[in-house]
Order: sequence, then structure tokens, then C-alpha cells
Amino acid sequence: MEHTMGRVTIPTDMDVVKETLELAKKWGADAVRDCDGTDFPKELKDAGLKVYATYYTTRKDNAWAKENPDEIQQMYLMTPIYTAEEEELQIHLMKGLYPDMLAPNSRDDIKRWWEVIDRTTGEVVDTDAWEYDEAGGDVTIKTVPFHDYTVSFLAYILWDPVHMYNAVVNDWKDVEHQMTFDVRQPKTHAFTMKRLRKFIETHPYVNVLRFTTFFHQFTLVFDELAREKYVDWYGYSASVSPYILEQFEKEVGYRFRPEYIIDQGYYNNQYRIPTKEYRDFQAFQRREVAKIVKEMVDITHEYGKEAMMFLGDHWIGTEPFMEEFQGIGLDAVVGSVGNGATLRLISDIEGVKYTEGRLLPYFFPDTFHEGADPVKEAKTNWVTARRAILRKPIDRIGYGGYLKLTLDFPEFTDYVESVCEEFRELYRNIKGTTPYCVKTVAVLNCFGKMRAWGNHMVHHAIYFKQNYSYAGIMEALSGAPFDVKFISFEDILKTPDLLKEIDVILNVGDADTAQTGGEWWCNPVISSAIKEFVHRGGGFIGVGEPSAHQANGHFFQLANVLGVEEERGFTLGYDKYNKDVHAHFITEDAGAHIDFGEGKKNIYALDGTKILAKTGDDIDLAVHEFGAGRAVYISGLPFSFENSRLLYRAILWSAGDEKNLHRWFSTNYHVEVHAYVANGKYCVVNNTYEPQETEVYTGDGSHFPLALKENEIRWFEI
Amino acid sequence: MEHTMGRVTIPTDMDVVKETLELAKKWGADAVRDCDGTDFPKELKDAGLKVYATYYTTRKDNAWAKENPDEIQQMYLMTPIYTAEEEELQIHLMKGLYPDMLAPNSRDDIKRWWEVIDRTTGEVVDTDAWEYDEAGGDVTIKTVPFHDYTVSFLAYILWDPVHMYNAVVNDWKDVEHQMTFDVRQPKTHAFTMKRLRKFIETHPYVNVLRFTTFFHQFTLVFDELAREKYVDWYGYSASVSPYILEQFEKEVGYRFRPEYIIDQGYYNNQYRIPTKEYRDFQAFQRREVAKIVKEMVDITHEYGKEAMMFLGDHWIGTEPFMEEFQGIGLDAVVGSVGNGATLRLISDIEGVKYTEGRLLPYFFPDTFHEGADPVKEAKTNWVTARRAILRKPIDRIGYGGYLKLTLDFPEFTDYVESVCEEFRELYRNIKGTTPYCVKTVAVLNCFGKMRAWGNHMVHHAIYFKQNYSYAGIMEALSGAPFDVKFISFEDILKTPDLLKEIDVILNVGDADTAQTGGEWWCNPVISSAIKEFVHRGGGFIGVGEPSAHQANGHFFQLANVLGVEEERGFTLGYDKYNKDVHAHFITEDAGAHIDFGEGKKNIYALDGTKILAKTGDDIDLAVHEFGAGRAVYISGLPFSFENSRLLYRAILWSAGDEKNLHRWFSTNYHVEVHAYVANGKYCVVNNTYEPQETEVYTGDGSHFPLALKENEIRWFEI
Repeated sequence: MEHTMGRVTIPTDMDVVKETLELAKKWGADAVRDCDGTDFPKELKDAGLKVYATYYTTRKDNAWAKENPDEIQQMYLMTPIYTAEEEELQIHLMKGLYPDMLAPNSRDDIKRWWEVIDRTTGEVVDTDAWEYDEAGGDVTIKTVPFHDYTVSFLAYILWDPVHMYNAVVNDWKDVEHQMTFDVRQPKTHAFTMKRLRKFIETHPYVNVLRFTTFFHQFTLVFDELAREKYVDWYGYSASVSPYILEQFEKEVGYRFRPEYIIDQGYYNNQYRIPTKEYRDFQAFQRREVAKIVKEMVDITHEYGKEAMMFLGDHWIGTEPFMEEFQGIGLDAVVGSVGNGATLRLISDIEGVKYTEGRLLPYFFPDTFHEGADPVKEAKTNWVTARRAILRKPIDRIGYGGYLKLTLDFPEFTDYVESVCEEFRELYRNIKGTTPYCVKTVAVLNCFGKMRAWGNHMVHHAIYFKQNYSYAGIMEALSGAPFDVKFISFEDILKTPDLLKEIDVILNVGDADTAQTGGEWWCNPVISSAIKEFVHRGGGFIGVGEPSAHQANGHFFQLANVLGVEEERGFTLGYDKYNKDVHAHFITEDAGAHIDFGEGKKNIYALDGTKILAKTGDDIDLAVHEFGAGRAVYISGLPFSFENSRLLYRAILWSAGDEKNLHRWFSTNYHVEVHAYVANGKYCVVNNTYEPQETEVYTGDGSHFPLALKENEIRWFEI
Repeated sequence: MEHTMGRVTIPTDMDVVKETLELAKKWGADAVRDCDGTDFPKELKDAGLKVYATYYTTRKDNAWAKENPDEIQQMYLMTPIYTAEEEELQIHLMKGLYPDMLAPNSRDDIKRWWEVIDRTTGEVVDTDAWEYDEAGGDVTIKTVPFHDYTVSFLAYILWDPVHMYNAVVNDWKDVEHQMTFDVRQPKTHAFTMKRLRKFIETHPYVNVLRFTTFFHQFTLVFDELAREKYVDWYGYSASVSPYILEQFEKEVGYRFRPEYIIDQGYYNNQYRIPTKEYRDFQAFQRREVAKIVKEMVDITHEYGKEAMMFLGDHWIGTEPFMEEFQGIGLDAVVGSVGNGATLRLISDIEGVKYTEGRLLPYFFPDTFHEGADPVKEAKTNWVTARRAILRKPIDRIGYGGYLKLTLDFPEFTDYVESVCEEFRELYRNIKGTTPYCVKTVAVLNCFGKMRAWGNHMVHHAIYFKQNYSYAGIMEALSGAPFDVKFISFEDILKTPDLLKEIDVILNVGDADTAQTGGEWWCNPVISSAIKEFVHRGGGFIGVGEPSAHQANGHFFQLANVLGVEEERGFTLGYDKYNKDVHAHFITEDAGAHIDFGEGKKNIYALDGTKILAKTGDDIDLAVHEFGAGRAVYISGLPFSFENSRLLYRAILWSAGDEKNLHRWFSTNYHVEVHAYVANGKYCVVNNTYEPQETEVYTGDGSHFPLALKENEIRWFEI
């Protein structure tokens, strides 16, 4: 194998200097990094490798934290919902929380910053009607018997959640718990800038400051048994303090309420339709965080170093697809690649010089232990990441963790070598061009570009029974030849012409969630705009419970467009006669049993709708024409190559463009064709670890048979 | 077999005089009846049988109907929801409707009685913005493009829906369509009373007027192809006319709107949480209907005849469990028995001298044709009916249809003979006593006693995938040793002490339906009352999505009582650790796989809850203690003897009375024990068509083994 070099970052540690150099050569690495729990060996500083240093802005200085307890980071927490059994209720705030991680903040005025709510009526309990006993840790409330109550309170974060996570996973013993401090507050702010300068000055061999990350950790809480209790990769609950909230109040001109963050205990998670106040708060945070990040980036640049942001951990407020991010001047973003969609989370970022993907597995003992097969995880990871890279490449790849752990797995280090080679080859071939896009599709939800690609994630790429049937759509799109936009309902209100640039709109998820929009569909401007879009020839693909919100005689507000409805009992009295299943362009490559994942019960077809697949009488797949446009209903679509093909066909059909199916196309859906017309190249890629045969169609519709080895990419000139 | 006589009604027709007499003897019938589509043979008038004559108050006199077209009955209909594609929309009112059955009523002021609604905004379209073209049958509306529109209109019922149904099912050719007339209106009212007198005078041999029924047909509409289009056995849509509605307005003091009946096209069906206006309308109708029914009953009595009401067809306004019914003075009610729950619909009626159940199958060609097995249907019907009869007997049984059709099925007529014998035996043994009741249970929903036993019915006892898992609970209760009450949320508001008489409350159904209550659970008085009830030692059994309405941090408003919640995405960020399944008193008789029917996805257990059964991670059965009380969650429970036992145990456990399980109890759940302490008797009944062995426990806990033949009832003295 002809060896190339570069575009790869390798992790190191004190005890693997020689091996770092060997593996760097093998993998063609041109950069080296330290990780949480490792130290950088100075011997490597002149090895010709670019040096990344992980830098923690908010921890790893307990002395400072202890000296400034008022500037330790805080988070909003809600107790469980308790039912009062008498006229008084005592709630122990820390019940269910890891005691070393959190401590209620009663330093600030609790009557201002805490909130006791009667969850039976939804009303705030008068501050005179409750007291906090600091010693016992209990709030005592005067109650109406059998009403439900919660306490929303601020707590100091005494152990950084990521440090705690790493300590628990790696079974670190006798490690001092790293406390957090809040860079947003004046003393720590000033201290931090000095601390950063000092770090750079004392680490002259470092080329890249890998900020991990900035100021606010995504929401991550542990229970008494140090088990994960609550997690939201997008959560803002741990980005608060009275200092910050008073600024917020000044900016927005209305009084802050804890409930804006608490949100009934749902903490404004990804499924919740965001309130105005929460969106205001996010915007405020993005602006304020960007300001201070810029200060740090400027200092980094002043010393001639690069500033790289890790997309994760304390990344709250730096949402990279939002405007504020663009002006920061960061050199690079690095993030963990769990699959194609998380790859696009990184590679779609604009306003930085380069992006880097940290591939899986992370070199941690949970994957690298006797009898384990890390190659398997690596293969799955690479094949899903590669699909997305071929659409929108990251500029570099890398690995993280303890390099030492890989040494007993020579098959793994060989496999990584092949991944690095392949990455460099495809990068050379495609960088700088926009791949050929068949259609422009827009995913419509409440968050739009802010949550691009991550719109069905709870904890990054982690599987949930409730989301894989929807996340599968994003995963399919991440490697598909479409220009994918993420738009919000507000975008349509603000820029109605937006829809003119779109061929097909997707609305994916469960009823009354931010993913589908809930009552946004009762806004006549929105519903009319979408209906008009389809009527004029646009495509609409609804997955799960698209446009669903019970109102005005419909559950699916776009029932007339989609041609399907959900039976919630209210229409049981109506006889249903449209039950026959039809063959169709969309299902031509599908097997007898399409995997709709969790699917949906009780979907039925209206008159004029063509059913393509059903389970019992429950519709899984149906098509319906509306004016000059076309709609497709799908009950759910987990990711698979077969389903990816089905979605591809659904998009083409809904856009009225079936005739162009055989352009840059492979008849075998395990194989995909990507064209880079500007570069005069195209590739045919076998996404599986078995050999595949297919018929390849090029841009002019001509075709030829092709056999590919397992996982092979074949490059051609146009 | 020793032959007894009486308590049985046999149908007859002109062509089966001899056979009627033979079968009457065989079955021990003491009454004979005619049916829709049959005529009574005068030869039978002196045969010693009581004679029932089916009497139709609203049809079978087309001359009158044609002379008085303004007093033909009317119904409210809504067109489908159409999307305007331009600034004008034309809607053909009769699209999708059977043309011979209905005709829009434009005789009355359409701008007053019709309503065009913008279903995108929910607003009424100004009457100036639409016109009706009588000739073409179209309403033309000035529209906002891409808004949705409906027309609510009144239509005359030119072919009685039941007559049409019978004509279609029996393939009657060249039958004149029987038109309907409205007894509520002045001319027809006066005419009807004369017509009734005339009928009685010209049919002196008739002993019982079997009114089929009174004035308003339950909602039943047919489509262009004469197929059933919409049905609601409880629907009031066909009980309207401007004459009636103007009276209604006067009584309630507010202006009537068609939407009160139309209800977005959902026609206030059984699943809809009833609005105040709809409840007002129902109450008004009950009062007005009762008045005129009483007039007819009084006339009947004046001639020395009995007045019997058929519970079905034109029964709207005579809800037999409501106050208004009691004062009418009817002698009897007869109804169709589809299963145990429909039996109780009849046998629980108070204020009449006797009740009669028309058993299945009806003697129609759909069941009695070559190769058919009517005995099978009869057996299933009898075994389910008998369970309920043993709790609360009807006073008579009978059959309907064309007797002639049974003659080719001697096995069937033999089986009916055995049913009649058995019915008389058990009636002798139990009549007049209240059977021993283990507990008092209350089914809590929006309708309370008005929909007792029918609360999960759409079209009488007909199966729907969406309701059998809930209707199964009612079916189990219909034959179980409990005092079953049906209470509404309003009942709790009006009579809080109501709950003191109850051991266990059941809340059964899907979220946001009338069966579970929806936003009623946000009324603090309701939720507190139920929580207090359980806390003090009461039992609560929730099935499906009990107390479900998204608000205040819960979907299940009684989550703290039930100990389970539904994952709707909003709590995905919370880790769930309570997943182990436990053995329990409730499941002691259950097999390895309990049939939860449709079940529910995404139910999870809170801390402190004991899971008894689950599918994957979705909880199907769980128990939770709350104060001194106990709650049981069940995801669904179709009727079976095994499930009936599970419910029995759940009720006992939730009431804290496991120790009394072995009282009047059979270890084999195919066998049940019913005690009639006042009569000094008890029976052990084999509900199956196979022999069964069991251990029988009597009231003092003593027990003995017993073997029963198929379907056998064994009577014992206490």
C-alpha cells in the first residue's frame, strides 16, 4: 500500500512515547493530542507532529474554585413532583442527586431565584408559604392537601459532570473532584484570561489549544448511586447563575422566572416546543458566550496558536450553525463522530478553517478489554461516517483516549491505518467541490438550523426506542445526494420565499413535539404556506405523526395533503374502505417486509390515497397527490441501506422527478454513487463488509456493471 | 328433560304459522312477535301466546310524510373538510352520501341553520361570503386560499336508516323507501297520537306495543354505494330540526349553533369530551322526548295494552339510566344482547315492570344460509349473556328475524330449547335477590351513568381494534361479583361524598377522550378528590392512558398515584432504572403471556412501583401504593376468562382485601361462583364448552372439588 501522510490526530500519554511515534507513522498522523486523564509527554514536542493541548476553561483549578465559591457554576434543578398528604409538605432537595456533585445555592436570595410551584394548579406558591432549612436541606411548604408540588432551585456544580463521568467510567480512584467555575462572572472572567495566557506561556510546544470546551456543560446529572440521572446534550439548564440571569433580564426587559429553565421538569428538552422565553434565553446566551469565547480566541491568536473548539461537553451557547458563532474567529472545531448525522454536525459548520472528527471507539477500557472486538465498532463507525464524509467532508480525523489500550489489538491498529489512508484519498478527490445534489430537501421543525442534524438526538447519537425510527431519516439524509436544509416554523413566517428554494419538505416525529411542531400548525400562515407549496408542485414527506395537533376536526393538520389521518377514537364511527395495498415506484427496491421501526398504530387512509404498506389495518406507507404536488406518509424509518433507498425514491417521487432516478445511481442499494462534477470525478462505494455487484448509472443515464470488494470505494473520471 | 314454560318470545311471519306453534311449544315461548319485514298472521292471535306488535312511530306512512314534507325528520351533516385552492371553493353537499336517503333542507333559512366554517382558523364564515345553488346542490364560498372549509347543513331523512339497512342486508327488491316524520313537530305530533289509537283499535289481538322505537334514530348514514358511512349508536345528530332547536334556544337562553351538534365533524361521539352545550342539548332532548313518549304510553295503557320500548334504533332521547326515563311509565324494555355488557344495558334499567333480551343471532340470511353454523354464534352469545344474567337478570329472552330461516337448522332450534330451559331455571333461582357483591367499583368517565355499560361502544357491541382492549373491562365487570357504578367527573363535583361508597375506581381508555376525562384532570377538585380517596385506602385501577392529559409536568395526572408515566419524548433524558418484573397476588392465576390486547407503548415505571408484566421495556401491568391505598396500572385487557380473573384479583388487591379471595370462588377461572344469599342458593357455572374441574370455595372459606360438564350450571343450597 502506497503510504500517504497527514489529516490524522493521534492521542498520546506519558507511558506510550515510543508507541505514539510508531503508530503516528503507521497511521500517517501529523498531529498529537492529550486527553482528559492523560498528560502530554514533552519528548514528543519535537517529533514533527502538530501538538494539541486539551484546555479546560472551567475546571482543573480547584484552588480558584475554593477561593471563589460564589463563582462556582450553577444549574437549575427541579425536585420530583410530590403530592402533599397534609397541609404541610417537606421536600429534601438533594433526594435522588449525587451528594458530591451538587449543593443547593442559598447564598443568593432563594426567594428570588427559587420557585415553589403547585403543579396541580400550575400556580407559583407565595414565597411566604415556604421555608428552606439549610442544615437539613429541606424545603417546607404550606400546602393544599393532595395538590402536587415541586421546588425549582439553583445548585452549585461541585464536581464537573464530565470529569465525574470519566472518573466513573474509568474507575479512577482517589481523584480530586474537579470543581467548576463560571467564566461569565467578573472575578473568574479576569482570572481566566490570565490563566489562559499563563497556560500558553508555559506550554510553548503547543500549537493548538483544544478548548474542551468553553463555559457551560450540557445538562448532565447523576443520582445517589453515581448513575446518570438526567442528560440532554442540548440542555441549557447548567448555564445559569443570578449574575447571568440579571443580565438576561436587563436585555429582554422582562422578569426572569426559574420556570423558563425548569419547564415543568422537562428542562426545555429537544422534544419540547420552545417557548419565547427559552428562545430569548438561548439567543442571549449565544451572544454572551460568543463574546467571551472571542476574547479567548484572540488571546490564543496573539500567541500565534490555533484555537480549536470541541463540539460537546461545555459547548452550550456556541451552537455552531447560528450567526453568533461565525464571528468568533475559531480556527477549528473537533467533535465526536457517532454516525453520519453526527459527522454532519461537524462538517457542515462554517466560519472555521477546518473541522476534525474524532472517530469511535474512544480508547477507553469499556471497549478495549480482553475478549473485546474494537474493530467491529470501528468498522460500523467508519462506514456510517464515510457516507456523510462523501457528501460534506470533515478536514481531519482523529482518535481519543488511552493509546496504550490499543497496543494489544494489532488488528485494530491495522484497521485504523486503512481508514486513515482511505480518508486521505477521498479527501483529495472531493475537497473543495459541492457534490452533485439531486434535490433540495428541508427538514421542518421548531428549531431549524440551530438543531441541524441533531434534531432527533437526546444524548448525541445514543439509541432510544422512541427516536431511532425518526433519527433514521436524518442518518439516511446525512449521506444522500441532497442539499439538506433545516428550517423552522419561524423561518417560514420571517422569510416566506424560503420555500421557493425547496423541492421537498420533511416533517418527522411524534405529535405535539418540537420535531413536528404541535400547535404551530394552527397558525394559518404556516399551514397555508405549506399547503400552497405542495399544491404548486412541491413534495411533502411526513413521518410518524407529521403536522399532528388535535384541532379543527383534524389530528394531522395536513390530512388533506397527506391523505392519512390518525384514529384517536374520534373517527371510529366513520367506516374506512380504502384498505388495498398498491405497488409503487417508491417501493420498487423494497423487500416484502419493510422495517418501519416503531411505526405508528391507528393510521388510516382517506379517499384518494394510495396505500403502499400497512400492518394489519394500520398504514405504514401511503402516497397522495395534492394539486400539482405529492405527499408521502411513512410511519417510521430506521436507518438501513434499504430504507435509505426507500427514502431516496420517496423524495424523487414526491418531487415529481421519477424519470431522473437513473442518474448517478446504483441498482444495488448497498452501493452508492457520488458525483463531484466540478472535480470531474465520481465514486462508487460499497457500504457493506461483503462484496457487492451492481449496475452503475452515470450522469447521462448510461450504465455498466460493477463488482466491488467489501467496503471498497472505486473512483472514476467523468 | 322436564319442560317448563314462559319468559320467551318467538318471532313469526305469515308463512310459518304451524312452525311458530311447534317451536313455541319446543322453546316454551309464551309470547310471539312480528319484526321489520314480517307480518303477523292472524291465525296466531288465539294461540294462547301474548302478542307483541312492532310499532314504528316515525315511519311506515309515506302518504303522511309526503303530505308534510316540512315535518320529515332532519339531521345535521358536515361535509368533508375541503382545502380551498383559490379564492372560491365549491362544495357539493351530497358528495359521499346516499342520494335516496338524504336531501339538504333549504326550506328553512339556511343562513340561520347552516354554518360554513374556516377549519384552518376555526372561525365561522360570514353568511354573506357563501351561497347555495339549490339546483346544482353546491355551496360556493369566498375563501382564503389554502384554508380548509366545511359546510354544516340540515338534511331531510327521506329513507329511514334502519329500514334502509334492513333492505340492504336482506336484499329487499322494489320496497318503497320508508320516509321518516318528526313526532316532535305539531302536525305530526297530533297525527301520531291519532295514528297510534287507530293502530291499537285495528289490532285488538295485540297485547304489547313494541315501540321500535320512539322519535330519533341514532346517527346512521350511508354512502353513495349504500355502504355504512357513519354510525354512532349514541349519536344525537339525527334528532334535530329548526322547530326543536328554537325550543332548545328558548330553554337554555343562548343561541344555538350547528357546531354544537357538528363538533368539527366528530358529532359529539362517545370518545369526545362533551361540551356544556352538548350536555344541555341532550338534557333538553331527554325531557322533551320523555314528555311525548309518556303521551303514547298513556294512550297504550288507556286501551289496556302494554308499552314496550326497543332499546335501539330511534331510541335517542330515552337514555334509560337517566331520571327523565323513570317517569315515563313504560311497561318494558327489550334490547339486543350482543354480550354481557349489552345485557346489563337492559337488565340494569329501573322503572319498568320487566326487561327482555333479544338474543343473537338474529334470524337473517347473513347468519342462516347453507353451510353456516348459527349454533356457534348462539353459544358464544349465550355464554357471555349468561354471565351477566347471573349478576342482574333480564326477565325474558327472545329472538327476532325470519323464523322460517331456522327451520333448516334443527341443531339450532334444539340449542335454543336448551337455552330457554336454562334461562327459566336460573331466573327462578335468582330473581328478586341481589347477588353477593364482593366490592363496589366505580367506572369514572365523562358520561357516568348515562353511558353505563356502553361507555366503550361505538356501534353497540361491535368490535373495534381501538376499543376491545378497554371494552373487555366492561365485559368482565358485567358478569363479576361487584356492585358496579358509573360516575362522571361532574358527579364528583356535585356530590363529593359519592366516593365514600366506593371501594375501587376504574379509569379506562385513551388520553384526552371522554372515557378517561382529558382536561377534567386539571380540575384541582377532581384530582385532589381522587388522590385523597386512594390515600385514605381506596383502590384505583387505570387502564390504557388513565388520567392522561399533558399538563404541569405530567401526562398521567395521577402519575404519583399510579406510579407509571408515558414517555412522549419529554422525559427521554431521564434514565429509567426500575425495570424488574415481580411475582404478585394479581398475576397468580395468569399464564406466562397475559393478553393485554392493543396494550400501550412507552409506559415506564416510576421509583417505588412494582412491575408485574411488560413488553420489552413497556409496562403492561404494575402496582403502586399511595398512602393507605393502592393503584394498579393495566395497559389494556381484552375480555377472556383469564383476564376476567386478573381483573378480579386486581380489584381485590387494590381494595386491600386479598385475604377474602377464597370466598365464593373457583380456583379454575373458567368456572365462576355466584351466591344469592337471600335466596339461600349459590351456583357454580362452567363458562366454557369443555368439561372443567375446579375447587369451589363457599362463603365461609370451606371448599370442595367439583367437575362440571360443558357449559353446566350446578345449583346448591347454602
